[in-house]
Formats: sequence, structure tokens, C-alpha cells
Amino acid sequence: MSLSNATPNVSSSPQPAVETDALIIGAGPAGLFQAFQLGLQGIHAHLIDALPHVGGQCSQLYAHKPIYDVPGIPVCTGLELVQLLEKQIEPMNVPRHLGQQVQTLQAMEDGRWQVSSSAGAVFHARTVFVAAGVGAFVPKALKVAGVELLTAGQLHYHPLQLDMAAGHNVLVYGGDEEAVNAAISCAATAAKTQLMHRRDSFNAEPAQLAQLQQLRESGAIEVLIGQITDIQQESGQLNAVQWMDGEGNEQPLAIKQLLIFQGISPKLGPVTDWGLALERKQLLVDPATLATSAQGIYAIGDIVSYPGKKRLILCAFHEATMAAFAAAEYLQGSKPLLEYTTTSARLHAILGVAH
Amino acid sequence: MSLSNATPNVSSSPQPAVETDALIIGAGPAGLFQAFQLGLQGIHAHLIDALPHVGGQCSQLYAHKPIYDVPGIPVCTGLELVQLLEKQIEPMNVPRHLGQQVQTLQAMEDGRWQVSSSAGAVFHARTVFVAAGVGAFVPKALKVAGVELLTAGQLHYHPLQLDMAAGHNVLVYGGDEEAVNAAISCAATAAKTQLMHRRDSFNAEPAQLAQLQQLRESGAIEVLIGQITDIQQESGQLNAVQWMDGEGNEQPLAIKQLLIFQGISPKLGPVTDWGLALERKQLLVDPATLATSAQGIYAIGDIVSYPGKKRLILCAFHEATMAAFAAAEYLQGSKPLLEYTTTSARLHAILGVAH
Repeated sequence: MSLSNATPNVSSSPQPAVETDALIIGAGPAGLFQAFQLGLQGIHAHLIDALPHVGGQCSQLYAHKPIYDVPGIPVCTGLELVQLLEKQIEPMNVPRHLGQQVQTLQAMEDGRWQVSSSAGAVFHARTVFVAAGVGAFVPKALKVAGVELLTAGQLHYHPLQLDMAAGHNVLVYGGDEEAVNAAISCAATAAKTQLMHRRDSFNAEPAQLAQLQQLRESGAIEVLIGQITDIQQESGQLNAVQWMDGEGNEQPLAIKQLLIFQGISPKLGPVTDWGLALERKQLLVDPATLATSAQGIYAIGDIVSYPGKKRLILCAFHEATMAAFAAAEYLQGSKPLLEYTTTSARLHAILGVAH
Repeated sequence: MSLSNATPNVSSSPQPAVETDALIIGAGPAGLFQAFQLGLQGIHAHLIDALPHVGGQCSQLYAHKPIYDVPGIPVCTGLELVQLLEKQIEPMNVPRHLGQQVQTLQAMEDGRWQVSSSAGAVFHARTVFVAAGVGAFVPKALKVAGVELLTAGQLHYHPLQLDMAAGHNVLVYGGDEEAVNAAISCAATAAKTQLMHRRDSFNAEPAQLAQLQQLRESGAIEVLIGQITDIQQESGQLNAVQWMDGEGNEQPLAIKQLLIFQGISPKLGPVTDWGLALERKQLLVDPATLATSAQGIYAIGDIVSYPGKKRLILCAFHEATMAAFAAAEYLQGSKPLLEYTTTSARLHAILGVAH
């Protein structure tokens, strides 16, 4: 697994284009199983996703919630399903390009597709599989003037690591579990940790709430009830935020690190700009092949529409399979044979199992 | 679970018709998951299968063989998959009518379908789901003249119980694991146990072969190398078989019980006689609804054909889902809502889970 392209959202230097037979946009259950089915066809694929981890909706919306209708799995959480799929596609050695959103998709002269990401990665792909679900999961942005002027390093949306907090005045902005956990972690290393939320009520596990209370009482975390109304920056450097408390009083707060936890929600984003046939913001596909209106581009899962389409995970698995067969025919120029994983020596070699 | 109709192949007295909203023909993985998806739609279904157990091809052909391409299940045997599906459909309380083959399917005046089985069971079903795979798994018959004249009780194909052997001269006919096991079991209670196979080589586990050898040496089982060429019967009563050894010598063998293990193989059978649109012996369906050419009859799995159809278990799961939604619309007269098992209180009630 290569994570070499899983860089933050802002690219520094141009990277060489990744040449691939197949690029899968979206690493949710549909995209993961697409990689598996392509692998069985002998087609090597790359995965790209806006989230910093695989799993899509299953990781983001159903991580710890039960799913009862995956065939043969009486019950599993979203995370468990993702882990099972990860294990299943292990033999396929699929490179993942995470934490970056696909931005452009353009036809190349030789019939391939050029795809660029928000991290500056460029792909030249013979086939593209849009498994983007309800869209790319992106953090809700802080909506105050001047945010776009900040240079990298001080404003962080849902950061996974908190190294940047050490020794600084840190403001954690949000009221959910992730925000509470971040404040607790920052308290150990930051010069000063403040946690701002619009009301004095946090949504977290009892143990975390107790720990937060303890750190408030000891003075390690200061909780501020209010919201950010403005930022103060100079040459892209953040110096302070302006904030308003419950009574409507505004005041400045000097900080060096601002950690925003306003939630992550899906945005269909640039998919609608790629010139593919759409109906009610869904990609129109042929259910026999999952081909979109553009040659070499297939789409599966919650983003597609065809007669009778149901937005269920198990349907995406079927679609991934149909798309893999169709793409194999497109790439090879002949219809692939249907072989069974139970009996096919070719598939056993791909799966790395001996019989 | 009701097994009241799971009687042997020959019926004695007529049974009252089973009235049901849905009858699923075939209890392989496709049929089992069809029952699950119908259950989620609030539609109660009955299952019928020619085999004496559920699982279809998975039980009969892949019982102990690995399957690698069921989504979210990196590897499982056919039997394991069946057990998982059995567990998944438990909340649906699906009555099973096993060990009987569907023979007729006829339109009733009120728009329902009348279905009759080889065990004399009759169903009046508002919808029928043909999930018959590659056909009904039926034992290969003994092909000698006069077999059809025998009355019930002396000739048994792949019997599950061996009570009939006690105190009698028994001939077990076959060379596979089931035949070897049957001979070993009969040796404990029969007056005389003979095991006939066309060559002195049996296909079974080492432990069973060792036990067979021991019983041969002690005289509890006599192995005969040859094949049955004729039977001797009087008024339907079996008295002896005529058999030929490897040198071509024929001789009679007096027996009272004949147990045939020549294998079980699929036969499409009467499905082709029901007037449904076919193409190359497969039922033509609309992939959006899995509806056949007859109103209220749906078909899924290996028996169907539509553009791009792949004969894979995971595709049958998708088809079962599409068919359940289509049938719900047909039965209710309005399109059912798509609800998620993770969040729907209605589905939680059906699944018997509390949230």
C-alpha cells in the first residue's frame, strides 16, 4: 500500500502522473469492492478519497452503528464491514491516495482520462470508476472573512494528529466528541488550551466528559461559550480570533493554532462538472455495464441512477462486479470468461491461495 | 419454523392448500436471501426445495470448498455461507418445505398462483419467486427395468435416516462418502450389510475408510465389486437384485432394502413447462424488477437471464433485493420507501433488535 500521495490538501511541487489501468474515485465499500473485482479481472487499480481513511459513509456515518442487511453478515458495524473489505482486497495491493479530493477529469488524446486531485496528484487512467457515494466527505469550513488568506499551518479542520498544538495557545472550536478529545489531548502539550462551543453542552462519552470537567476545574482547559465572528491575520499569519459570547459581547482572543471541528459532510463537488450525463444529480448508467455516458468511465453505488436503482451497499457490490466485467471487456477487447473463486486456478493465483 | 410439509416424496392424503403472500422455489443462498428481503418488506414467505436441507448448490457442490468473492466475507465454505444466511433470516420465521420438488404452477382465477409439489403439498401464492438455480437437486435414479413398479419402503435414494435397515438384508449401492457412511451405520443394525460399487475403491475420509476396512475384516460388511443389472420383484415387493461382477458373471442377490447413492445432480425439471419466457433454458426477466413474463412471478439467481447477467452469488443477492421491492409494490399497490436497517424503527421491529 502506498500512501505517498496522501499529503495534505495543499500541494508544494508537481508530482509525476500516476499511470494506471483503473482509477477508483471513492474508497467506501463500493470503491473497495470495485478494487477487488477489478483485481479478479487482472486489472490493477488505484483508490482516491477525500477522507484521510478508507470506508466512506461506513466510516463516517455508520462507524459504530449496526448494519443488518449485508448478505451473509447478520450484523456488523460500518467499521467492521470496512475492515472485512480491507482484508478481502489485501491480495490486490491497491495503492490509496487519501485525504485528497478529485478536482478535474479530462479526456486525453489517446482515449485515457486525466484526473487531478486537490493534493496535486495527477493520474492518467485508461478507465475511471466513480464510486463517490453521496459526494466527498469534506469538513465544514469556518465561514468568516479572511480565512482564505491564512497560509498553511495554523488553521486545521478535523486534524488527526495534534503535534502542532505543542507550546502554543490553541483554540479548539466545536462541541462534539472529536472536539472534546482534541481539547483533552492538547491540554497535555499546549501553552494554553481553550475550547469554544456555542453552548455549555458537549456531545461525548461520559468518561470523556468527566475528564473534560476535571481539566476545566484544574484550569488546564478553559471553556468559552460563544462563536467566532472574525479572524485577525497579518501576511497570512493568524494572531487572534474575534468572538462573541452568549450576551452578544465581542472580544478578541489571541491564539496561534485554530482547530475546527464543525463536522464533516458530503459534497457532490466537481463530479457534476465532468460532462457526464446526470439526472437529479445522479450519474446515469447502463445497468448491464455501469458505463456512464463517457467511454471508459463507469459509476457505481449511491451516485448512480438506473431503472429500479436502490441505494443499498449490497447493490453497489453487484454494480462493482458488473462494471469490472465491462471494463475488462473494454480494456482487453474481448468478453472475459466467468470464473469461480472456488475452482479457478487463475483466480487462486491472484488471491494468493493454494489449492 | 414449520416442517409439517417436509414429508417424503410420495404423499398419502391430500393436504389443505398453504395460503401465502410469497412462495420461494429454491432454498439456496438466493432463495434464503429472498426470504430476508421479503421479510424486510413485511411480506411473509414460504420456502420449498427438492433437497432435504437448505443451501442448494452451496450445500451440495461447495459444502466444504472455499468461496472468496462474497462481499465482506474474505473466505467461507458453502456451508458456512448457508449457516450465516440461516442466522440472518431467523427473524423472518420462514416455513420450509423440504425434500419435495415443485411440479406444477398454474394461474388461479383470482390472480394468484397454485403450486403443487411432489409431496402433495399445494400452495396458493400471491407472488412466486423462482430461485431454482441450475435446477432441483435430485438423486440419480437406478436405471433398470421394473424399478418404477416397486412400492414405497424398500428402495431409497440418499436416505438421511437408516431406520429401515434394522433386521434386514441391506444392499448399499455406491462408492462415495455417503455410501460408505451408510454401510457403516447399517452394519450396526442390519441382518446383513453388503456394499456394492463398480470398483474396490471408495471415496471417503481416511477414518471412515479405516472403519470400513475393519468391518470388512470382521465380516460385518461384505463388499461386492460390480453393478446392478436387474431387480426381482413380485407385486411391487423387492426380493433380490441381479448383479454382474467385474468378469461379467451375473448372479442374484437376495435383499430386502436397497439404498442407492449414485449422486445428486441438478435437473431444471418442470420450470421449463410453466409457460414463462425462456432463452437458452433461462428465465427472461426485467433487471429492474426481476419480473418474469407472468404477473406476480419473479425469478432470481442462476436461472435468470438479462443483459450482462453474471451467475455469481452476490448478483443473486442484489436481484433478491430488487425483486422484493418490486413484489412489495405489486402487492401493496404503491412504491415502498427505501429504509435502512441501521436507522429504521420499522425494520428494527421486524429484525427483533432494540435501539
